[in-house]
Amino acid sequence: MSDPVIPAGRNIEPRRRCARAWFEELRDRICAEFESIEREYSNGQLSERPAGKFERAAWQRPDETGPDSGGGVMSIMRGRVFEKVGVNVSTVYGRFSAEFAKQVPGAEDDPGFWASGISLVAHMQNPHVPAVHLNTRHIVTQKSWFGGGSDLTPMVPNEEDAGDFHAALQRACNGHDPGYYPRFKQWCDEYFFLPHRGEARGAGGIFFDYLDSGDWEADFAFTRDVGLAFLSVYPQIVRRRMGQPWSEAERDRQLVRRGRYAEFNLLYDRGTQFGLRTGGNVDAILMSLPPLVRWP
Amino acid sequence: MSDPVIPAGRNIEPRRRCARAWFEELRDRICAEFESIEREYSNGQLSERPAGKFERAAWQRPDETGPDSGGGVMSIMRGRVFEKVGVNVSTVYGRFSAEFAKQVPGAEDDPGFWASGISLVAHMQNPHVPAVHLNTRHIVTQKSWFGGGSDLTPMVPNEEDAGDFHAALQRACNGHDPGYYPRFKQWCDEYFFLPHRGEARGAGGIFFDYLDSGDWEADFAFTRDVGLAFLSVYPQIVRRRMGQPWSEAERDRQLVRRGRYAEFNLLYDRGTQFGLRTGGNVDAILMSLPPLVRWP
Repeated sequence: MSDPVIPAGRNIEPRRRCARAWFEELRDRICAEFESIEREYSNGQLSERPAGKFERAAWQRPDETGPDSGGGVMSIMRGRVFEKVGVNVSTVYGRFSAEFAKQVPGAEDDPGFWASGISLVAHMQNPHVPAVHLNTRHIVTQKSWFGGGSDLTPMVPNEEDAGDFHAALQRACNGHDPGYYPRFKQWCDEYFFLPHRGEARGAGGIFFDYLDSGDWEADFAFTRDVGLAFLSVYPQIVRRRMGQPWSEAERDRQLVRRGRYAEFNLLYDRGTQFGLRTGGNVDAILMSLPPLVRWP
Repeated sequence: MSDPVIPAGRNIEPRRRCARAWFEELRDRICAEFESIEREYSNGQLSERPAGKFERAAWQRPDETGPDSGGGVMSIMRGRVFEKVGVNVSTVYGRFSAEFAKQVPGAEDDPGFWASGISLVAHMQNPHVPAVHLNTRHIVTQKSWFGGGSDLTPMVPNEEDAGDFHAALQRACNGHDPGYYPRFKQWCDEYFFLPHRGEARGAGGIFFDYLDSGDWEADFAFTRDVGLAFLSVYPQIVRRRMGQPWSEAERDRQLVRRGRYAEFNLLYDRGTQFGLRTGGNVDAILMSLPPLVRWP
């Protein structure tokens, strides 16, 4: 895929290439780890099913502003541990619409943008294994910043998993700035909240946006560490819980909790709303919706 | 429930009482008919289950503008033919928020309002029986009007059902104004459309709003006829299809189509969005969400 903002052979923007390469590498490492878990699973409900494998599908972004405006690759696995997990990596560029440009830092006078990121949502077969979300991204307009975060959604209350998950993210934050964790944890709690239910979507995690400390390398290193923290802790939680037997009542509770997940993503999530209203790739945007949901 | 806009014993507003009484009567007739269908069902998948019965729950509308601002009664049945059907009747009054008042005809200078209506969504066990939606309402500000409509969502394509449904609504329209049906049918097709999918939610029906011809009695009679058309045709479609055997693949298709229903209601439906953002009764507003949904 060529990248008009970075003409090959001259004026190379190594930062963008680095960021994009990282998101793709993280995707590969996560997918490999999740496929390992699928193969390992040998003793428990549904273990008679074949181990899941990721399927990849590339998509191009249609855009009236030029013949090439980027695209992405969706990776989806429907397995015996991971009921449905989607990992989307996309790198898109072009010009924001005049209306949208007004809302984006650094795009007020020049609507040109470049954005690359990874987005992951996992919905699990076993109600004892929490669902999870990870997203990190790098956006470039006349300004540039990182954003993202990761949050856990236990379906059956479980303090140990949430505690380990929070601790891993806290370590990643503390390696960079002692102020990050309290700020980004609170931001996450505020963002993933369903006002009509008066409920949090899950157990939280961290959420950050517009991160531009003035030291690009440091911000990129922090963003990488968020991905690595996810990779260190979530597979460990999955392995700990995946063999635990579950009841029909627990499965039922999981399907009902997933309804809250769908409500949040369709009613409030800014990325979903923006993507759908601006002709983004519908399958990639709605990949996050749970495979089976109950509204009793 | 007292009604502060209509002080008992003096200055009675018979129109409002009539409209409200009609919506409640229609509810009772529909619920009785649906319960009859549940009892009749004797020969087919799930007929070993007990016949469903409606359960009713009253709710009060919390409102800072006064001690009494109305409320409603939710009727829900989870049966062997009707997997989940909700019928909500509500009569609410008070003052719109300043921001909302600007968007409502006749509320620009005086935010006082009174609104009564019936809203129904049925999701069926058998994928051959279409899902259905009915809503009729009367709104009073400094202006007053009727609105509503009814539309059918076949889960397995079926032209006969959609044809009969449209014909019944067309007859109801033609009894009042030959221009109604083409106008209200098109309005329905435009409203129940998912732009991100490039798909209609279902097979359509009619949708109308701000109906104020200058002849209140005629508009009320038309609104009643929409409800009666629904009552004449939908139970007939249910009885025709409910005994038809279905396959797992058809059930699967139904659950996927229900995903589109949930997407529409959460992403686009004005009533849902408005209700949730203004502290309406969450259970009543989200009663329309399907009992079981698949996003594969």
